[in-house]
Amino acid sequence: MEYVLSHVDMITAGVPYKVETDMYLVIKDGYIQDIGHHPLPEHIEKEWTVYNQKGKIVLSGMYNTHAHTPMSLLRGVSDDVELQTWLKQEIWPREGLLDREKVKTSSSLALAEMIKSGTVAFLDMYHLHMDDVFELTMQAGMKAVLSRGMIGFGTKEEQAQKVEEATALAAAWNKNGNGQIRGMLFPHAPYTCPPPFLEMVIAKAHENNLPLGIHLAETSEEVERHKQLYGKPPVVHLDELGFFEGEAVLTHMVHLTEEEIELVHQPNLTISHNPMSNAKLGSGIAPVPAMLKKGLHVTLGTDSTASNNNLDMFEEMRTAALLQKAAGHQSGAVTAEQVVDMATVRGAKALGFLEEGLLQPGAPADFILLDASSLHLQPVHNIFSHLVYSASGADVTDVFVNGRQLMKNRQLQTLDEERIRYDINQSFDDLERMFVKQKEGRS
Amino acid sequence: MEYVLSHVDMITAGVPYKVETDMYLVIKDGYIQDIGHHPLPEHIEKEWTVYNQKGKIVLSGMYNTHAHTPMSLLRGVSDDVELQTWLKQEIWPREGLLDREKVKTSSSLALAEMIKSGTVAFLDMYHLHMDDVFELTMQAGMKAVLSRGMIGFGTKEEQAQKVEEATALAAAWNKNGNGQIRGMLFPHAPYTCPPPFLEMVIAKAHENNLPLGIHLAETSEEVERHKQLYGKPPVVHLDELGFFEGEAVLTHMVHLTEEEIELVHQPNLTISHNPMSNAKLGSGIAPVPAMLKKGLHVTLGTDSTASNNNLDMFEEMRTAALLQKAAGHQSGAVTAEQVVDMATVRGAKALGFLEEGLLQPGAPADFILLDASSLHLQPVHNIFSHLVYSASGADVTDVFVNGRQLMKNRQLQTLDEERIRYDINQSFDDLERMFVKQKEGRS
Repeated sequence: MEYVLSHVDMITAGVPYKVETDMYLVIKDGYIQDIGHHPLPEHIEKEWTVYNQKGKIVLSGMYNTHAHTPMSLLRGVSDDVELQTWLKQEIWPREGLLDREKVKTSSSLALAEMIKSGTVAFLDMYHLHMDDVFELTMQAGMKAVLSRGMIGFGTKEEQAQKVEEATALAAAWNKNGNGQIRGMLFPHAPYTCPPPFLEMVIAKAHENNLPLGIHLAETSEEVERHKQLYGKPPVVHLDELGFFEGEAVLTHMVHLTEEEIELVHQPNLTISHNPMSNAKLGSGIAPVPAMLKKGLHVTLGTDSTASNNNLDMFEEMRTAALLQKAAGHQSGAVTAEQVVDMATVRGAKALGFLEEGLLQPGAPADFILLDASSLHLQPVHNIFSHLVYSASGADVTDVFVNGRQLMKNRQLQTLDEERIRYDINQSFDDLERMFVKQKEGRS
Repeated sequence: MEYVLSHVDMITAGVPYKVETDMYLVIKDGYIQDIGHHPLPEHIEKEWTVYNQKGKIVLSGMYNTHAHTPMSLLRGVSDDVELQTWLKQEIWPREGLLDREKVKTSSSLALAEMIKSGTVAFLDMYHLHMDDVFELTMQAGMKAVLSRGMIGFGTKEEQAQKVEEATALAAAWNKNGNGQIRGMLFPHAPYTCPPPFLEMVIAKAHENNLPLGIHLAETSEEVERHKQLYGKPPVVHLDELGFFEGEAVLTHMVHLTEEEIELVHQPNLTISHNPMSNAKLGSGIAPVPAMLKKGLHVTLGTDSTASNNNLDMFEEMRTAALLQKAAGHQSGAVTAEQVVDMATVRGAKALGFLEEGLLQPGAPADFILLDASSLHLQPVHNIFSHLVYSASGADVTDVFVNGRQLMKNRQLQTLDEERIRYDINQSFDDLERMFVKQKEGRS
């Protein structure tokens, strides 16, 4: 697999971001072998397959650090209601009806939607059928950090078994994932995983050198309840339990004190900031400017389509910037460079897919092309600004992971879009039939 | 011009919104003559041109109640800086260089971008060459409320002349606009228009039966300065000056007290809420839930691409909902139905283009079609939710105004997209050359 993309403009990866015009990228065996300004070296021009991509912008792919792909079936089942109503009356009863087939169609939809909007890698957590998500991700050609989610209820034996199974799965994915998949242990949240269970998971993670993930400090209610139960906020509690000693991704992190922000200021810790989900569920606005000021590794995640309601990381970037500017009455509260950094370089690092640097010779060929001709990107002088403040995932035309083309001119190359559309609607009809039947049975 | 769109799903216009499936719309002479469920009446099937649009969703077009189309050239010239720096160092010096040609290319881009994202009508204000915007709007086939913006400086005579000219233009547009264009008087803001000037404008508006528009209470600094100067906030001051006695569109309205919200609770007054511009410039978050609770007519506007940075009303709807949920910690703070209402029915009413109701027999044939097949709109069960929480302007495929098709399968029918793209980039290069030269001349 050797080829050259020529005559592209490229956004360099890393602050300060720059736009380099009229570039070529030489791709070989899944890696970027060379990047340069035209003209092409003569021997490459002669011997390689050259694809002229004039008018396209090369950008690092998007790294989505929080998803629940099996929940894509639940997009739009409930909006505009309080979190507890949403969970208890709409989401959980339907999740109880998800079987292997429905998880598979949901995840297929999510993966296809992510590729279509320029995402090359994601972190996924669900309590069911994650082995199917592994297979799907391999087939789709994306990179992912996968975890079977855990809730710490049941007997001690049941708990131990749960942790054993999740660990075995993570280890198997690490082994069989061809470097594209990494396993993770993801206890759901401090409010669903009591301290002894968390200690068990933490020990297992450290023993097996697996990264940890968790939902943390998402709502103020959850933080208050934790303080009442344990006399301390969940972030402080997790620190005491040793959660922060290894590699970990801390998701949401909306309700934090200055001291708690300082506590998670460690090179091994990543924040997965989910602004649209936190907004939609009324959870609040994470203190991102304070986190960035302290130097925390802040990344971006969409959460599931049940609370977003799409997986477009371009929109997530824009919302991340706009929310902070609005709430802080500061137009510079979070900048375009900062949100691109979160969605690309920092995300790649958090997921373990960044070696030396993105978009440079020696780096995996993970990148996307965007069409610069859309009217909302005119005039094309400051394309970096346009990508953050005007573009959407729909402007992405091509997606490459390890040099393999997952989307070509908006056509998926590794997944069957028509089939996914058919399956997801069949699955949804089936789910709603079961949901209505179950409700009738209860009443 | 007689035709039928058949086999569409339709979102009815007005709370509660409903999705009607397998509908037909009969269009005649610019109006919707009939709407019904299939099968088509036999005589229509036989005698009319029927376009099968299966898979498309019919929705009211979007009504953008705040734009400055001649500023589209300035997209991306400056982001992430404080408002005063933005205005004084980046925007105003470049605006000083806009000539008739540049205003025309800018507005052409804006109109094309609006049509491409499903907007059928807009309110536009600029101090230069609005006669060209009138011509362009007629050519493009959109509906608009136009105004030559006014700033109240200069001698008494100069001021009077300014008001005379703006009034004459508005009257001419009303006369020559074929019902598609309405004239408006738009003094820029209380901080640029001293009370005597405002009184002159208000008198002129009432005398000529013209609606008024103004930027109001956009930033807290502006409100504080007004209180220092006049001993009262600008909203109270405008009320005393008689600004609220006729039809008026009050734009931004971010920094208001409960009493001020009550003061503008009048059937002749409209709020143009611009959430993305207010966010991007760090102005703040307007108290929309309080406004809605009191029953104010809240509509949506994008402001210009210099502070948005696109003209996509779908994104504006979503941001309007998400910002309030996030800031108010209430997932129901502003609902999907409320933002659609703002962007459609209330916008149409504010701009004077709503007679009986939208999307019903007898209404002007102003509507859009969306493609329901996109992956981010799957499963397609609750398409109303998807349109607000997942769609973007890029999902709009067709736009109709007075029955005339302005976009067909994403192809503009009344404007030349290729030409606009060429012109805007030429204009921008020219502008930046002049801008650099001017800066050098000053230093």
